[in-house]
Amino acid sequence: MTELKIEKNLSNEIDFASFENNEIEITGMIQNLRVLSWGAFLILRTPVYTIQTVIDKNNINIQPESLKTESTLKIKGIVKKAVIKDKAINQRDFEIQISNICVISAPSVETLPVDTTKKELNINLNTKFDMRPLTLRHPRERAIFKIAAVICNEFAGYLTSINFTRISSPKIVKSGAEGGANIFELDYFKTKAYLAQSPQFYKQMMVGIFGKVFEIGPVFRAEKHDTSRHLNEYISLDFEMGFINSFYDIIQVETNVLNSIFSKINKTCSNEIDLLEIKIPEITKIICIKFDEVHQIIFDEFKKDYRTEKDLDPEEERLICEYAKNKWDTEFVFVTHYPAEKRPFYAKEDPDEPSRTLSFDLLFRGIEITTGGQRLHQYDEYINKMNKLGMNTQLFESYLQCFKFGMPPHGGLGLGLERLTSCICGLANVKEASLFPRDINRLEP
Amino acid sequence: MTELKIEKNLSNEIDFASFENNEIEITGMIQNLRVLSWGAFLILRTPVYTIQTVIDKNNINIQPESLKTESTLKIKGIVKKAVIKDKAINQRDFEIQISNICVISAPSVETLPVDTTKKELNINLNTKFDMRPLTLRHPRERAIFKIAAVICNEFAGYLTSINFTRISSPKIVKSGAEGGANIFELDYFKTKAYLAQSPQFYKQMMVGIFGKVFEIGPVFRAEKHDTSRHLNEYISLDFEMGFINSFYDIIQVETNVLNSIFSKINKTCSNEIDLLEIKIPEITKIICIKFDEVHQIIFDEFKKDYRTEKDLDPEEERLICEYAKNKWDTEFVFVTHYPAEKRPFYAKEDPDEPSRTLSFDLLFRGIEITTGGQRLHQYDEYINKMNKLGMNTQLFESYLQCFKFGMPPHGGLGLGLERLTSCICGLANVKEASLFPRDINRLEP
Repeated sequence: MTELKIEKNLSNEIDFASFENNEIEITGMIQNLRVLSWGAFLILRTPVYTIQTVIDKNNINIQPESLKTESTLKIKGIVKKAVIKDKAINQRDFEIQISNICVISAPSVETLPVDTTKKELNINLNTKFDMRPLTLRHPRERAIFKIAAVICNEFAGYLTSINFTRISSPKIVKSGAEGGANIFELDYFKTKAYLAQSPQFYKQMMVGIFGKVFEIGPVFRAEKHDTSRHLNEYISLDFEMGFINSFYDIIQVETNVLNSIFSKINKTCSNEIDLLEIKIPEITKIICIKFDEVHQIIFDEFKKDYRTEKDLDPEEERLICEYAKNKWDTEFVFVTHYPAEKRPFYAKEDPDEPSRTLSFDLLFRGIEITTGGQRLHQYDEYINKMNKLGMNTQLFESYLQCFKFGMPPHGGLGLGLERLTSCICGLANVKEASLFPRDINRLEP
Repeated sequence: MTELKIEKNLSNEIDFASFENNEIEITGMIQNLRVLSWGAFLILRTPVYTIQTVIDKNNINIQPESLKTESTLKIKGIVKKAVIKDKAINQRDFEIQISNICVISAPSVETLPVDTTKKELNINLNTKFDMRPLTLRHPRERAIFKIAAVICNEFAGYLTSINFTRISSPKIVKSGAEGGANIFELDYFKTKAYLAQSPQFYKQMMVGIFGKVFEIGPVFRAEKHDTSRHLNEYISLDFEMGFINSFYDIIQVETNVLNSIFSKINKTCSNEIDLLEIKIPEITKIICIKFDEVHQIIFDEFKKDYRTEKDLDPEEERLICEYAKNKWDTEFVFVTHYPAEKRPFYAKEDPDEPSRTLSFDLLFRGIEITTGGQRLHQYDEYINKMNKLGMNTQLFESYLQCFKFGMPPHGGLGLGLERLTSCICGLANVKEASLFPRDINRLEP
């Protein structure tokens, strides 16, 4: 038996100021190495810092030419004040004058297949994704996923702070929530099962239990088209809330959770913002435009006639965002009252205009990042609606029972993490906001 | 176009003291209704509170006999100080004398199939799981999943505070991480794919990028045995960290994250603790016992001879916890140095005794809740080990490339959310800690 003393300080944070002109020992990987006649600049990447270190050829145990980028080093050196402008470095006030280097491990290849030390990777998407374990080490790639991490954490943090309860729903399911052919099938101990297209049914059931719930989890869509807006597996940020007066209550929560995320990114990711050269938005006003009104505006302002279409065209989404930006100085547009035929069976129809639903999409910088709305909450409404649509209600029995047991008026939304991340970071393709994207042609790494 | 004012206070929290002797309006569902000669006690469940309300028959618009449990009500009434002992109520200092009831929705069935108003549900597991949307409304069930939510949130919160980065890895994968037959297969656009048994490969790759990472996500195990300790889908709390000196660094992080979770549960779940009649543990000392030593202790102390076994028997896990509790007054035992043949190929062997690995399990109250350890980190080590085991390294190429690109010494662990929750809550079956459990016989709800 061995008893260990519990160590408490595990953050790996260093108060560099307190080490000024003193020796420090630090472990990390070589992000970048620039060998010069007198020695080298070496940028070391640790779990917390990227920091510049300086090697003097005449005063070191290992010559810098022999070092390989992406090696793991333990270095000793003196902390010195510095003024560093390189945006790929997050500890810009200090540098380390190295006196001793110990190489702990090194790449096994002579030359890395992609040069991650350049300011821009400048490689095609396939190469970028094929070599994810290397390409993600580029400072800009890291910055994207630091921001994605903050989005997830703050989504959970803000919703918890207003008394939503976190849930985890199953991903192997008996029936799909969104219908259609876009569903992956699997064999579950000789029974046909599916991968969940969304946690829809489960989060609704959970409203009966906790009133307000959220989930962060993967969803799976077997969509066969390979576009810059689609992933076959992505992270959905979902919430569902009971006791609503209208679907505008959901829009209020979304506005607050997004603003809370934006503010957290501003507070904790200043280096990443700087590096990606982006500006984090804020929802300063809630602009709601009805679906039919969008068609009309696009017709009136841009002379494009989509007025008979039952959905918004991506071009319309782009144009209405452009219009809203000019007219109301906002990057966010809530489009409401989508046609019932384009929404799933659980969407609640507008009593004043039953061909329209009490639903909305949130458009941000030209792209739909959210679909939400009020749901039916009475058992009879479900049976009637599903019969009207020719659906087999027996397949949904275990879900529909929650409405037999009593449910409050409720609604919610799903927010695609990768879409939100890619819009915030200004990425051309949503796949760039996925660490290991899955599409019709890609299952690795 | 409609512009909405942004509302900021969305927490649904009420300062009942400030409403004392004043009228309040509140919406919720009927958790419990006890009709008496003079009126009724009605417990209302809101997203934040369960609170007692009182109906005076002579002073109400709806007679209590006509109300159904699990209906959604909007009530008006006067807030009064009260002293309430019922543990199923979390707002015990105040009650509401109702003056007006508006029924917003009601169950469609005459009688609910399970009585959730009793102190204990007392139904068999199958019924409990079949009717999850109803049975989860029982206060004890709700308490379990409030605690599970805190575990997830604090796992993320603590690790983020010590500079771990949250990641999301794909669940549809090309090859399994844990090997064996316990893997679900699916058709991915005419290619054979699998559901991830763990985020192992991905979290290791991500150590090269962020140094310290964690993930909260589902994992899938096609195990055919239906026991009280297994689920076919569960939530895995994973972390992986680079730059470790030994696997004891991982044990230190686990100790701190668990203590942080325990302390958060104590701080935020006093009602749930009270209701479930449980005591939240704390790791006050880190007790590590080598695998072989466990066999020896079980032999010496309990006269059971497992000394030639290559794994721990569940009985041994129970007995060594009992022993540790008596001898060292701890509920936690880290069993270290498991035999190499029982650990996956990526486990690092102990240089002093290559038949043993630098790995550990954490046993808590007789059950293994964690498996962790140091991993190989050099490309050559992987190739040699996999060749020795007769594995086809080509199948793992996209994973193995990360070691070509350079990796620091690293390790990590996986912690089963449902196992931890069930051990904390003293549940007899891990499935009771899953909202919608999946086992060989269950795919619904």
